[in-house]
Amino acid sequence: MIKLLVVITLFPFFTKAQSDDSIFIKKIADEILVNGKAYENLHQLTKQIGGRLAGSPQMVKAEKWGAATMHQSGADTVYLQECMVPHWVRGGADKAEIASVDNKKQTRNLDVLALGNSLGSGEGGVTAEVLAVSSFDELEQRKDEVKGKIVFYNYPFNPTYIVPGKAYGESGVYRYTGASRAAKYGAAGVVIRSMTEATDNNPHTGAMRYNDSFPKIPAAALGLKDADNLWKTCKEHKNVKMSLYTFGHFLPDTTGHNVIGELKGTGASNDFITVGGHLDSWDVNEGAHDDGTGVVQTMEVLRVLKTLGYKPKKTIRFVLFANEENGNRGGLKYAEAAKAKNENHVFALESDEGGFTPRGFSFNISNERLEKIKAWKNLFEPYGASALITGFGGTDIDPLNENLHTPVAGFNPDNQRYFDLHHSRGDVFEAVNKRELLLGAINMAALIYLADKYGL
Amino acid sequence: MIKLLVVITLFPFFTKAQSDDSIFIKKIADEILVNGKAYENLHQLTKQIGGRLAGSPQMVKAEKWGAATMHQSGADTVYLQECMVPHWVRGGADKAEIASVDNKKQTRNLDVLALGNSLGSGEGGVTAEVLAVSSFDELEQRKDEVKGKIVFYNYPFNPTYIVPGKAYGESGVYRYTGASRAAKYGAAGVVIRSMTEATDNNPHTGAMRYNDSFPKIPAAALGLKDADNLWKTCKEHKNVKMSLYTFGHFLPDTTGHNVIGELKGTGASNDFITVGGHLDSWDVNEGAHDDGTGVVQTMEVLRVLKTLGYKPKKTIRFVLFANEENGNRGGLKYAEAAKAKNENHVFALESDEGGFTPRGFSFNISNERLEKIKAWKNLFEPYGASALITGFGGTDIDPLNENLHTPVAGFNPDNQRYFDLHHSRGDVFEAVNKRELLLGAINMAALIYLADKYGL
Repeated sequence: MIKLLVVITLFPFFTKAQSDDSIFIKKIADEILVNGKAYENLHQLTKQIGGRLAGSPQMVKAEKWGAATMHQSGADTVYLQECMVPHWVRGGADKAEIASVDNKKQTRNLDVLALGNSLGSGEGGVTAEVLAVSSFDELEQRKDEVKGKIVFYNYPFNPTYIVPGKAYGESGVYRYTGASRAAKYGAAGVVIRSMTEATDNNPHTGAMRYNDSFPKIPAAALGLKDADNLWKTCKEHKNVKMSLYTFGHFLPDTTGHNVIGELKGTGASNDFITVGGHLDSWDVNEGAHDDGTGVVQTMEVLRVLKTLGYKPKKTIRFVLFANEENGNRGGLKYAEAAKAKNENHVFALESDEGGFTPRGFSFNISNERLEKIKAWKNLFEPYGASALITGFGGTDIDPLNENLHTPVAGFNPDNQRYFDLHHSRGDVFEAVNKRELLLGAINMAALIYLADKYGL
Repeated sequence: MIKLLVVITLFPFFTKAQSDDSIFIKKIADEILVNGKAYENLHQLTKQIGGRLAGSPQMVKAEKWGAATMHQSGADTVYLQECMVPHWVRGGADKAEIASVDNKKQTRNLDVLALGNSLGSGEGGVTAEVLAVSSFDELEQRKDEVKGKIVFYNYPFNPTYIVPGKAYGESGVYRYTGASRAAKYGAAGVVIRSMTEATDNNPHTGAMRYNDSFPKIPAAALGLKDADNLWKTCKEHKNVKMSLYTFGHFLPDTTGHNVIGELKGTGASNDFITVGGHLDSWDVNEGAHDDGTGVVQTMEVLRVLKTLGYKPKKTIRFVLFANEENGNRGGLKYAEAAKAKNENHVFALESDEGGFTPRGFSFNISNERLEKIKAWKNLFEPYGASALITGFGGTDIDPLNENLHTPVAGFNPDNQRYFDLHHSRGDVFEAVNKRELLLGAINMAALIYLADKYGL
């Protein structure tokens, strides 16, 4: 009794509606914490299917698994939405990607991963002197030295940003555009310092894009220990040579699918709410936090609303997007189809920041609208996701926001651990904690429930 | 520039003092995130020394290491404070603790860990029928069946409590008092369901205490898979037998030490602030989160204040307590000595909830005092520890609060993962994330700085 009184004292400003809502959200939480299937579903996706880049055989398996699991989770209807996807392969058959460094005294092999969308060196590799630079500024200052060399970008992932996404945003441009910026001055290849602060030496891949005006040179990532060693070697020795072997290439675009499940709304038949994550992942890991957790949380939201007998006003779409990592064709297709059918999309939510303990949501909406949403803060507080801020929604749902002006939000876990494993071999099932994963699903289900009931 | 303006808009209520404070706390954060030694120190403690129960040779090594590391971290003075500690050993030399279960069709071995402070079964083991109960209520109802049996408490760790410490508090009584409550009715031994929701089968040890009025029967913990299987077996079969072999016993109390470093205050010579964690750990793991992280965070607070040239008003004591796990003799000794010397202890902070991402602090103080502290909320917000609530400080500093009325606080990380590994073999260095560990130290250093500057 004393504890109950404490709770009442803590939330004296709860209205009757909020009290009903807090009771329903507690039901969501209890159901997910006791009977949640997200962790077991993630085990299937990561261990039975594994890495699943768009166009890969694993992605075909993942679509089938996604449709079957969507059915099991209680969707009224499940269907696949076709879209063409890029089909990049790492290549090389049984040949390992590798970089070897020769400082004239010794040769050392470095652990490398070709960047996604990059074109390989070919069988013979690329052998050239290394030009180590710390930034684009240094590249520009030394542009006359670039010709024929392999440029090594050692731009650090700033540890002093408390929000690691800020460091990712700042260093990401080296991965994304670094090859062509070096190719412009005649570079033969690039290697980048991985975008991480991890204590291991795993290289981190991720999408890059060539500027068609310049030669498409090989591009690969180094782990932090190798990057530190290479930097030291280049400072201590002249004419350090690297041989780089990568085998990436594109096959013709192929057919992929967004996997969509629906809970039919009881209200206006043209009103939709979307919640999703992306089914594709990089090829070198199990795509556990990126974005297996978003996928299984999405289906957990479906399962819990169905299990509790919730009848949504709007039709809720649970979407496993086809191709976030190297093209965003799934998200673009989804918004395009919605626009073509003149659907009214009132809200979309994505989980694509990892399945870590919840912190809040970021809303890509006006400040006025955010103030309204902040009235729900007390409802999220017991479950950890009380930081309701403006910000990015998610890559897959961004086209809805762009093209249909849909208010969108991203689930924000505490992602201090995220960039240790993001796009590296370390992103595996074992890195996901069951309870943290389920807590994320609770908060997502609560937000979908509130958005459906009250609008946004 | 736009970003700077945003920051100013977000905190329009910052006073000049808070602005100075936020600048100093940013310096703390930058120094720790760039040059922090906590992770490397934790590696030494866990990998070079390992598990270190009070009285063990490892604890002697840990004290030496602690004193040396305290010096390196910049203490003005370092000394050892002697205290007598219990000396419980798991025993058995090379014999494994084990339980085997026989349902008449087959015999199965279960993975067990004797509870800390429990007395062993002896070489011959204890063999008896199993009485499986779900709670003390059921034990009382079936007290006539207890005699001569091994009682199996299968009390669950409630998954629906969002704060896992609440489930721990509720189920902890089975570990702590379960043996004697069963011995009262003539039980020959007890096994308990481990206090965890972990997905593995590791048993979790931890302190128990006998009631001297009853026989001191063996007591051990089972992992969750074994507990679930045993429960099922007991429901499906009659007269299920268990043989339990444990070897715990006490050696005479021995000498242990609190390791204490000081930064001398510039103000009243009798004013003290304490920050600490406990150096001892259970014997079956590396004592990483419990409480290696608290130990290295404590020395990181020292290191950063020294490095930044901070001159405290009060003398700050950095204390690695000698014996939290099975007796709290370190904390009791520290408070006793403080009282004997009539020291004025204005504040004490402990980190003993794991080295996870920060959430806040719990203060064992009046609500009026807490309101004052809440004025600092904005200073902690950028670093994650903004939940400033009333609650428990920590076992080691509780005697200061009890005996000297010292305001105390506990660092609250997000401990959703804590009870997966707490007191089990899983509490190893690899379960600690460097960045999460450092973020905890930042918030602790900020609180010590504010408490020194403004009082509490």
